[in-house]
Amino acid sequence: MVLIKIGGGEKINFEFIAKDLTNLKEKYLILHGANYEMKRISKRLGIKEKFIESPTGHISRYTDKEAIEVFTMVYAGLVNKKLVSALRKEGINAIGLSGCDGGLFICKRKEVIYSKEGERVKVIRDSYTGNVEEVNSKLLITLINNGYVPVISPPALSSDFELINFDNDRAMGILAKALKIKEIVMLIEEKGYLSNLVEESSIVKKITLKELDGFINNSEGRMKKKLLGIKESLMGGVEKVYLGDGRIKSPISLVLEGKRTEFTK
Amino acid sequence: MVLIKIGGGEKINFEFIAKDLTNLKEKYLILHGANYEMKRISKRLGIKEKFIESPTGHISRYTDKEAIEVFTMVYAGLVNKKLVSALRKEGINAIGLSGCDGGLFICKRKEVIYSKEGERVKVIRDSYTGNVEEVNSKLLITLINNGYVPVISPPALSSDFELINFDNDRAMGILAKALKIKEIVMLIEEKGYLSNLVEESSIVKKITLKELDGFINNSEGRMKKKLLGIKESLMGGVEKVYLGDGRIKSPISLVLEGKRTEFTK
Repeated sequence: MVLIKIGGGEKINFEFIAKDLTNLKEKYLILHGANYEMKRISKRLGIKEKFIESPTGHISRYTDKEAIEVFTMVYAGLVNKKLVSALRKEGINAIGLSGCDGGLFICKRKEVIYSKEGERVKVIRDSYTGNVEEVNSKLLITLINNGYVPVISPPALSSDFELINFDNDRAMGILAKALKIKEIVMLIEEKGYLSNLVEESSIVKKITLKELDGFINNSEGRMKKKLLGIKESLMGGVEKVYLGDGRIKSPISLVLEGKRTEFTK
Repeated sequence: MVLIKIGGGEKINFEFIAKDLTNLKEKYLILHGANYEMKRISKRLGIKEKFIESPTGHISRYTDKEAIEVFTMVYAGLVNKKLVSALRKEGINAIGLSGCDGGLFICKRKEVIYSKEGERVKVIRDSYTGNVEEVNSKLLITLINNGYVPVISPPALSSDFELINFDNDRAMGILAKALKIKEIVMLIEEKGYLSNLVEESSIVKKITLKELDGFINNSEGRMKKKLLGIKESLMGGVEKVYLGDGRIKSPISLVLEGKRTEFTK
């Protein structure tokens, strides 16, 4: 079984991905983001998206009470159903699920998060974010065995049944481990991991787990978190993570043919 | 098996409903609306909600391209996941699904709809509305047999895989027929069917299929459509439809104890 992780960038092309998935012989499931639409809808609602930098340098979304409502609408509603529609159009038996549904993901809510603001560190308590701690793999296996392709998005529920934003890049490894998945294809708005962001030819072809910490230390923002997620996936039992371009035709076929960065143990 | 149809009004109380459902001995599934939240979010987005009156006097939502996006966010995202969260909090193994997911509902899109505007009738072609024509009952039965409570909302997909707004009151009978359901509990912002809208004591205790057309002719707007849906349900094989108050504590218990309007063949 393969996990297809689809980024939420503006140029990620659901139509190309759906068409190409009809060529995939193995069983698979999908985990997707919706960053661009979140930005677009938040703007239309007049809500300022908030991001914070942790003292260790990780950038993440600050999801307060107002933001988690918009987040739920955009991720579990708008984007999840658009992706399901694109997949079903190609004859793929897609079923959209959020982490809330059927107890798919149980999250531990972060009671406090720390935000670096200049030299000071601020404590934030009204953040609806957390990490996935449990996966209802039985539900996924039941659906997959009945011929469905699960299409999963945040949010999930906390153990107190609050809606929680979890990070897909970090959830990926936990999901893969629960389903004993050995291969992940991550589709992003880049050709792979670039050692020089403005130079597409600087793509790194292969990165081993041993080398990964060096790359994590040299990365910033979203890419840093992606690499962390990849590290956790490899440490959890995944054998290969492929990072490739989700903007182009035949994105998965091209990744599997070698147009990617390959992460291995 | 019982179908619980939950209205989308502002005062419908998900918490009371969820608590009370833990007392229900029979298996059940849920179909829900989100009218109030649709109104609230549309307003925040600066989108004017459009309604039209058909030449035969039915009021319905006019869902154009912009509205179907908001509709999808609010129904399948925000409200569906809030309801799932309220149910799971009470230990109910709820799983949210839109009509799009797993081919749950296939709709026939209305190519044209007619809008009465004064003495004239206008033809509208960009409406993303339709009627449910097929139900994937196998998916629902699989989930129910595995211990899940399906929590279903619009939209669905058309045969051309467009997102489509379907009317819950009209879909109810088709869903009930597909699952051979004999009992429906409809929770609304009234104590039942009132012969005088401003007089709660004017509740009609029992209406037979034979009497129903008279009530349909005397009703307007949403209630007219509810009665039409009830008629279709009874004609499709449902034996009892109970219409009762979704705003109060123990709403389903009270309906089953007799606080309702009962519709029978």
